[in-house]
Amino acid sequence: MEIFKETFEKGHEQIVFCSDPAAGLKAIIAIHSTVLGPALGGLRMWNYRSEEEALIDVLRLSRGMTYKNAAMGLELGGGKAVIIGDPQKDKSPELFRAFGRFVESLGGRYITAEDVGTCEEDMYYIARETSHVLGLAGKSGNPSPVTAYGVFLGIKACAEWVFGSDDLRGRKVALQGLGHVGMEVARLLRESGAEVTAADIYPYRAKEAREKLGIKIVEPEKIYDLPCDIFSPCALGAVINEDTVERFKCRIVAGAANNQLKDGSFAKRLKDRGILYAPDYIINGGGVISVAEELSGMPYSLDRVFRKLSVIPARLKEIFALAVSEGITTAEAADRATEKRFEKVVA
Amino acid sequence: MEIFKETFEKGHEQIVFCSDPAAGLKAIIAIHSTVLGPALGGLRMWNYRSEEEALIDVLRLSRGMTYKNAAMGLELGGGKAVIIGDPQKDKSPELFRAFGRFVESLGGRYITAEDVGTCEEDMYYIARETSHVLGLAGKSGNPSPVTAYGVFLGIKACAEWVFGSDDLRGRKVALQGLGHVGMEVARLLRESGAEVTAADIYPYRAKEAREKLGIKIVEPEKIYDLPCDIFSPCALGAVINEDTVERFKCRIVAGAANNQLKDGSFAKRLKDRGILYAPDYIINGGGVISVAEELSGMPYSLDRVFRKLSVIPARLKEIFALAVSEGITTAEAADRATEKRFEKVVA
Repeated sequence: MEIFKETFEKGHEQIVFCSDPAAGLKAIIAIHSTVLGPALGGLRMWNYRSEEEALIDVLRLSRGMTYKNAAMGLELGGGKAVIIGDPQKDKSPELFRAFGRFVESLGGRYITAEDVGTCEEDMYYIARETSHVLGLAGKSGNPSPVTAYGVFLGIKACAEWVFGSDDLRGRKVALQGLGHVGMEVARLLRESGAEVTAADIYPYRAKEAREKLGIKIVEPEKIYDLPCDIFSPCALGAVINEDTVERFKCRIVAGAANNQLKDGSFAKRLKDRGILYAPDYIINGGGVISVAEELSGMPYSLDRVFRKLSVIPARLKEIFALAVSEGITTAEAADRATEKRFEKVVA
Repeated sequence: MEIFKETFEKGHEQIVFCSDPAAGLKAIIAIHSTVLGPALGGLRMWNYRSEEEALIDVLRLSRGMTYKNAAMGLELGGGKAVIIGDPQKDKSPELFRAFGRFVESLGGRYITAEDVGTCEEDMYYIARETSHVLGLAGKSGNPSPVTAYGVFLGIKACAEWVFGSDDLRGRKVALQGLGHVGMEVARLLRESGAEVTAADIYPYRAKEAREKLGIKIVEPEKIYDLPCDIFSPCALGAVINEDTVERFKCRIVAGAANNQLKDGSFAKRLKDRGILYAPDYIINGGGVISVAEELSGMPYSLDRVFRKLSVIPARLKEIFALAVSEGITTAEAADRATEKRFEKVVA
């Protein structure tokens, strides 16, 4: 894989291979952009089958963080880090301390946080070596409720755009995935009077949602076919694909999952079917707003964070309007509007 | 190429791919070791045919710098940087400023300087963006006279070891290469009363040496066959190879060239022929002593640098003794003694 070909095409600034045999550390830090500020993005630990697989992942994820952070109006660039290793077996204090020293060596250009495969305890060891880490105990904490509230506000913005009102009473929502975020989205929707039908691959979660929230449950594979107003993907990525895109019987797709479109062509197919798509990295950006709040220097305030989430419906409406005026998909409109923010100003 | 395989085997800490499309910058910074201090090593600009070729070069060169800096007793680790590009066509102020920003982003873990394809003017632009650069105008300046004096001291140490006296009067030296360093080595040898015969691929240099220093000149290919006491390679690398190793009619090989051995097996063949080999990165280490002197914080003093060069004969004699006591080649002895200095102390 030609690294400079990737970086020149996709705009990454710096790729750092970090090696510490004594600690067993093989990590890659990718800094996609620091145009708006330090590159913020989580640390993923994953049992990649090859170095190249890890590299492809960190390049893709770091670029996504630039878009997400810029779209949320944060004064932050985008980056990401991966550790090659099994999060079940290969963790040690020394591993994360060694990683923390490399983060420190970048002097604040990259700021790390939790991601898939890492947890608060890992951040604690990283913080022994660097101050450029967020998501520690006693700080912003679990961002799921914040992400969920942002998604909820996004769904309301979509409803307003499509139905002329953000009142969700009686609106039918098909919700996929009842994890930390999906469950909270379901709760907020129920509180607003929506009729929610949900699916999850874990029966215990489905049971909990039915009993606590009073929502209907269907088999996971049936969720795509439900006649509804809003389909809300809150689980896997790439759920908008050749198998599903013609099955949706909804007017809106708006949910918390990352990378919902298998590729950009599916945004076009949703548009052609008259379905409004809420670009994923806009609607699910609450998590970065929450974690970035730690950088304010003030004591973390959930109240302040919740108020900042109003950027999500505002940004969505701008994007929907841009998509209409330019005759493009909402996914394209999101990228175009976001790229404007972090384009390099030629001095 | 598997980067982590290389780094785990050869001990590199950090490989940084630096990309700035606007400036046309494709650079790799390799930090081999910071155990003894910041990683010092020059910036090479070269028209590499591929990214992999550049990577292999910077990995090899950065490791060599760890050994050289450690052997010279400096409190410095080893690193190196390469810019992929044609030094005749692709230079610009913006290119070096962009590189300088990446050096700055490493916060002093890597210190850059001139190397093949870069010059003092390039360092000037780098210094607009970072203080972690050496070899600027008015500082240590051209290190060739210092390197040459270190080589001269090394040759005397070899003579003392082999002949029992470091008096060079009447000693026959075959010297290959009359560039900045080789010419000065020739001058110092002549001053000491040695008989010098030299060769260079540029006739004008050979002519200058003959006229100014009164030394004999032979055709470049004949230099290997001259009966002499000391063969001094001061030009190309890999001159000790299958074509030459059996031709040397000398007792000592000691010169300024980098990477004189095509590979380690040729050190063994010199040893078997009873020829003393002065390990290249020890005898030619004067240049790093000179440039590192800028880090002392005191005004640059050539006098102080010349006094520090005594480390070269001292180190050579230790290595020669170690090689005898362990029954190994001087090249192995040099590596073994040097590695002791920068081995990681397990805390």
